[in-house]
Amino acid sequence: MVAPDIQKTVRAFVAQELKSGPAELDGLAEAPLPLYDRFRETGLANWWLPKENGGQGLSLSDSVDIVNELAYGDAGVAFTLFISVLGTSVVSLYGSPELQERHLAPMAARGSYCATLGSERNAGSELGRIETVATRSGNDLVLNGEKFFSTNSGFADFLVVIAASAEDPSDHLAVVVPRDTPGLTVVRRWDVIGLRASATYEVRFDDCRVPAANRLAGNGLRLLEIGLNASRILIATTGLGIARRIRDLCMEYAKTKRFRDSTLVDSPVFAAKLGQMEMQIDVMKSQCRQAARDYDEVMAGPDPATAFARQGTLKSALTAKMFCGQAGWEIATVGSEMFGGLGYTNELPIGKLLRDMRYVSIVEGGDDVLRDLVFSRYVIPIPRRS
Amino acid sequence: MVAPDIQKTVRAFVAQELKSGPAELDGLAEAPLPLYDRFRETGLANWWLPKENGGQGLSLSDSVDIVNELAYGDAGVAFTLFISVLGTSVVSLYGSPELQERHLAPMAARGSYCATLGSERNAGSELGRIETVATRSGNDLVLNGEKFFSTNSGFADFLVVIAASAEDPSDHLAVVVPRDTPGLTVVRRWDVIGLRASATYEVRFDDCRVPAANRLAGNGLRLLEIGLNASRILIATTGLGIARRIRDLCMEYAKTKRFRDSTLVDSPVFAAKLGQMEMQIDVMKSQCRQAARDYDEVMAGPDPATAFARQGTLKSALTAKMFCGQAGWEIATVGSEMFGGLGYTNELPIGKLLRDMRYVSIVEGGDDVLRDLVFSRYVIPIPRRS
Amino acid sequence: MVAPDIQKTVRAFVAQELKSGPAELDGLAEAPLPLYDRFRETGLANWWLPKENGGQGLSLSDSVDIVNELAYGDAGVAFTLFISVLGTSVVSLYGSPELQERHLAPMAARGSYCATLGSERNAGSELGRIETVATRSGNDLVLNGEKFFSTNSGFADFLVVIAASAEDPSDHLAVVVPRDTPGLTVVRRWDVIGLRASATYEVRFDDCRVPAANRLAGNGLRLLEIGLNASRILIATTGLGIARRIRDLCMEYAKTKRFRDSTLVDSPVFAAKLGQMEMQIDVMKSQCRQAARDYDEVMAGPDPATAFARQGTLKSALTAKMFCGQAGWEIATVGSEMFGGLGYTNELPIGKLLRDMRYVSIVEGGDDVLRDLVFSRYVIPIPRRS
Amino acid sequence: MVAPDIQKTVRAFVAQELKSGPAELDGLAEAPLPLYDRFRETGLANWWLPKENGGQGLSLSDSVDIVNELAYGDAGVAFTLFISVLGTSVVSLYGSPELQERHLAPMAARGSYCATLGSERNAGSELGRIETVATRSGNDLVLNGEKFFSTNSGFADFLVVIAASAEDPSDHLAVVVPRDTPGLTVVRRWDVIGLRASATYEVRFDDCRVPAANRLAGNGLRLLEIGLNASRILIATTGLGIARRIRDLCMEYAKTKRFRDSTLVDSPVFAAKLGQMEMQIDVMKSQCRQAARDYDEVMAGPDPATAFARQGTLKSALTAKMFCGQAGWEIATVGSEMFGGLGYTNELPIGKLLRDMRYVSIVEGGDDVLRDLVFSRYVIPIPRRS
Repeated sequence: MVAPDIQKTVRAFVAQELKSGPAELDGLAEAPLPLYDRFRETGLANWWLPKENGGQGLSLSDSVDIVNELAYGDAGVAFTLFISVLGTSVVSLYGSPELQERHLAPMAARGSYCATLGSERNAGSELGRIETVATRSGNDLVLNGEKFFSTNSGFADFLVVIAASAEDPSDHLAVVVPRDTPGLTVVRRWDVIGLRASATYEVRFDDCRVPAANRLAGNGLRLLEIGLNASRILIATTGLGIARRIRDLCMEYAKTKRFRDSTLVDSPVFAAKLGQMEMQIDVMKSQCRQAARDYDEVMAGPDPATAFARQGTLKSALTAKMFCGQAGWEIATVGSEMFGGLGYTNELPIGKLLRDMRYVSIVEGGDDVLRDLVFSRYVIPIPRRS
Repeated sequence: MVAPDIQKTVRAFVAQELKSGPAELDGLAEAPLPLYDRFRETGLANWWLPKENGGQGLSLSDSVDIVNELAYGDAGVAFTLFISVLGTSVVSLYGSPELQERHLAPMAARGSYCATLGSERNAGSELGRIETVATRSGNDLVLNGEKFFSTNSGFADFLVVIAASAEDPSDHLAVVVPRDTPGLTVVRRWDVIGLRASATYEVRFDDCRVPAANRLAGNGLRLLEIGLNASRILIATTGLGIARRIRDLCMEYAKTKRFRDSTLVDSPVFAAKLGQMEMQIDVMKSQCRQAARDYDEVMAGPDPATAFARQGTLKSALTAKMFCGQAGWEIATVGSEMFGGLGYTNELPIGKLLRDMRYVSIVEGGDDVLRDLVFSRYVIPIPRRS
Repeated sequence: MVAPDIQKTVRAFVAQELKSGPAELDGLAEAPLPLYDRFRETGLANWWLPKENGGQGLSLSDSVDIVNELAYGDAGVAFTLFISVLGTSVVSLYGSPELQERHLAPMAARGSYCATLGSERNAGSELGRIETVATRSGNDLVLNGEKFFSTNSGFADFLVVIAASAEDPSDHLAVVVPRDTPGLTVVRRWDVIGLRASATYEVRFDDCRVPAANRLAGNGLRLLEIGLNASRILIATTGLGIARRIRDLCMEYAKTKRFRDSTLVDSPVFAAKLGQMEMQIDVMKSQCRQAARDYDEVMAGPDPATAFARQGTLKSALTAKMFCGQAGWEIATVGSEMFGGLGYTNELPIGKLLRDMRYVSIVEGGDDVLRDLVFSRYVIPIPRRS
Repeated sequence: MVAPDIQKTVRAFVAQELKSGPAELDGLAEAPLPLYDRFRETGLANWWLPKENGGQGLSLSDSVDIVNELAYGDAGVAFTLFISVLGTSVVSLYGSPELQERHLAPMAARGSYCATLGSERNAGSELGRIETVATRSGNDLVLNGEKFFSTNSGFADFLVVIAASAEDPSDHLAVVVPRDTPGLTVVRRWDVIGLRASATYEVRFDDCRVPAANRLAGNGLRLLEIGLNASRILIATTGLGIARRIRDLCMEYAKTKRFRDSTLVDSPVFAAKLGQMEMQIDVMKSQCRQAARDYDEVMAGPDPATAFARQGTLKSALTAKMFCGQAGWEIATVGSEMFGGLGYTNELPIGKLLRDMRYVSIVEGGDDVLRDLVFSRYVIPIPRRS
């Protein structure tokens, strides 16, 4: 469990900033929202950054507790605040000390953002198809190509870009690109169906030039896979936070809604639904925490960079995201039927929560992709089965 | 099957008017939308109205085919165009000849609308709690109260209002109220999460006075139940139309989406999902048609008013709505995961179709209400079980 | 609806012969069970055989009603009594008049059985792999090979065997083989997990010789597909019958089981489950009947043999079996949890009903096979989509 | 994780004793099976008994690992070997030192059994209805009544009996009764549908007299609830073991089953199913372990007896059993469709595994009971929600 004072701080932030109703949070307002400044004032922005870089050095287990609270308030806000972990974790593990100091220390100091750019229009579930190319040019790398979806790139300090190597098409690079690098264009912001307090962009690179030292050590696709461990676990956790919010919304409604001779909260059918929901929430929490412990265990080892390079994707990170997406969707489905006709209006936030929940099963690998990955990595190879 | 020329007309309307993209249809634009005028021009508006009143006299089986096509285009448009059937069917069955002529004939001639007002804030699933009261005053009835949800009331010719009797609180009335009657106020239009081409309102009655002859014959709650037979079957049918649209959207996408060495349409996992979807669509269609045949069979009898008064809610109308809501939601769930990240944006209509589909299980009785009704009406009484 | 006197006869048979408890019916007793003699005495044995051959000539719609009643009593008995339809229907459609008279007339007269032998150990879902071979030898056909699963072959009058052509390996034959033909060996009876009143066998052919005129007209795989239309619809229907039995078992139990201040039948949670069950049963029935109507419509046409040869598998036959298997399994799952610990004992038949229900989704094409078939036949070809 | 040598011992036992095929294990053979003697020879029998009583003192976390392995071999064997924990844990916590020494030490020394008798014919989900009565008679307690289901009572050393107090009908007692006490009759062994290597009995007490000191301290219903914590977690774990067995059975089959141009293991649809299964297995394991850690944490506290008396049922014990029952059933359902027709025969153990799996959701509280319990204990009281 995260330290009580941190939990208290996060809860206070949620209570103050995220209860204002969905208008601002669901409006696709200009990004980043002003309320992120207030989060920065708590001192918790980018809470996971290493102490060496001036960060708080909180573990992924702590992150699960923090994101659980944030997502209870608003999943889009939570996503915006944690998704930088995908990029910073690979910079921490596979960037040179100089890269770390240059890029992570300011993020710790200023509470700013980074973005990671993997998928492309023709390379979604199959990243091997990436068409963005990095070409060696003297001491520089020159990037060309388009990246379809990446969150926070419109206002991030820097971007971690996955690109194919021009010299060796079978190799991929992960390259740190400061956002003000010439040749980098934010093409558009996506009009998303949920998580509308977050901002996801399409980005283009035209002869975008950075020092070759900005390349992270290792194969870019592998590094991306490693970075996704943390973010997938936290995406799973947003599902947990949204689910808890839905449960509480149901309880709040049921306590005053007249039903038969009493209120809805006394209905056995309602109780059965909430009992099932609570069971699912409890299991979601156990799985998010287990995955975070698995992650933290690797990080606590003597050489996490090598350990992660060998292991790639963590089984429990995949299963946490799959499970929380599926169980969360069941909860959102049941929840959205709980309020009668009112639940079909925007008087209640349930419609928004339903749309928010949907992302857990879609972003960073849909279930079809993840099922296949679990099968090929963890079912086929007998020695790893348990 | 509806006559081929009618089907052709409806399909042409859908192709011309409802493919323009979701902007207009999903924007909660001012109601009624101009495109309803174009539907009126086809001559099919209120296609079910009796020939005696100048209507087309199409059956509910025909209606299923028409609504299936309309909802493929847009469920909100379909809902707007058919929901008047709830009110007109009870006027046809239980209104005096004079009431029928005065109110149905203009609807047939002008393609206008009627609305039905049953549920209230405190009387959703439990209509016995209705607080709107009709008081006898000489040859008039005076209405007072508020109605929470009713579609089309903002622009309908007349409203069928269900009210408790001031004289006998255990009795309920169904009363025809022209929309321009003094004392009738449209309080607000609801900001709904889907079906946003339709318009649903909250309405208030303050000493709203109509002739006592505007009362329909019979208990108002029973009449409402009878009217819901047709509308529930057609709500189920919108689920069918939306489901077919989702299937075709998936196929369209899969035919060009590169996947492994081919396109997505060649993926066995995709095939399995679409095969399951098609199975569900086929069963939805069978059930909607069976329910419509059951309805038409009562209507073809010598005395449908008495037959319906005796029977009340049709079992297959309940089960059609329940099943299409549930199967439709499964289809929408699977469909919304089919497009990768793109499916989480408004570039594709899948987000809207998901929101539209949700209404099938919510409107005119959620599944909890209907399960209970099926149980008490059709499981408990052994003689009716089969 | 089948004629009332027939329904009455079947119900009386069920009440008398199939309520004795599961001991005999679930014991894998020697086949065929003596109770089949009592069914023959009703005059209804092989009720679907054409009047030309001395049969009753009942439609598939009638068959659905009959099998629904039989399966309510015992699904294994129902299966034994209807599965001959698979073979007789292809003999009726594609056998010479002489073959029909020689083989169908005795079945009508004596209420005996036929069996159909398609699948093999290495050719289950992929019948193209069939290794049983028919070799032309003068005016005879000589069969060699093994057939894995076929119901009733241990006591059938004749077998319809699907075999590859020795002369043209891409062609397949359907051949009528009297059971006493030398070279035909019943290898073993399968110990099945449910439907244990039925009997399914493994059969071997060693130089088994029949006149070439015993070949049915057309490609054997296509004929098998056509024959499966009737049997799949009736397999779906057994799911309906079992489901109704489960529902009634739940009601019977709930009426006496004390629960809180009353009995279980008054529990809202119980009501919700039974309401859902009843909905599913209603939809199962609609779909079985729709599929039977589709079948009967082809049969009522001027040339059903050509019509079926063109169409092959009926969409609604596939979707009926898929749907009834899935919905039936949900009902059996819910049902098996309804009786507390008693439901885990053989004091109640629920354990048997659960095992019986399982076959609907497994026999004559599992859902994976059928989903693929629905996709390739009815989703891919746009003109057939609707 | 349990110590590697223990895991190795258990695995060796499973490999040697439980792979002989289901005939013996599924045959309801005379209890206890001889193979339990071989387990005793491993020295692990009743592995959880406290070191003070000569036991191994293994934790519940260790127990999860052991039961996971045992249930992979056979769930009925696992159940027989662990279910004594329900009784011994309450004797350990709430029995006098003398009771502990007299009853637990022999169990540790001899690897024998105890049974717990809670539910009755009319007191299944509602234990408050218990009709077995304990009457004070001098220094003795006299028991009268019948107990419906209790595992191992036919051969246990002693029974823990829950009875209403004759003196105070609102109070309940938990009483230790040696099996050879006069007046105790084993009425019958139940013919169960699965777990047939275990043995569950109906037991009657006629003036069955034991010293009053055999009463455990505290309310009998509360003690039962406390004892169920350990057993429910281990029942959940059997679901995990069965699920792993089903997965491996699928993989084994798929590696040799020809499918299209390859084997089934290369089918993407198969991969998707196994990937989903593996995800569920991973989550089941996380939840069982979390629940065991919660249990062990209470036990590691300074005063576990008081802590458990205050807390009663552990939330995670309830949710583990609910979740593993539900996810396990999904796995068994998918698994049972994986083998074509062969999966409907007893050639493969899948039919038995399906029946075994069913018990997880039925025994020691069905899901309806547990949902209600989770709701009333952990959703309603806001301070405990998290």
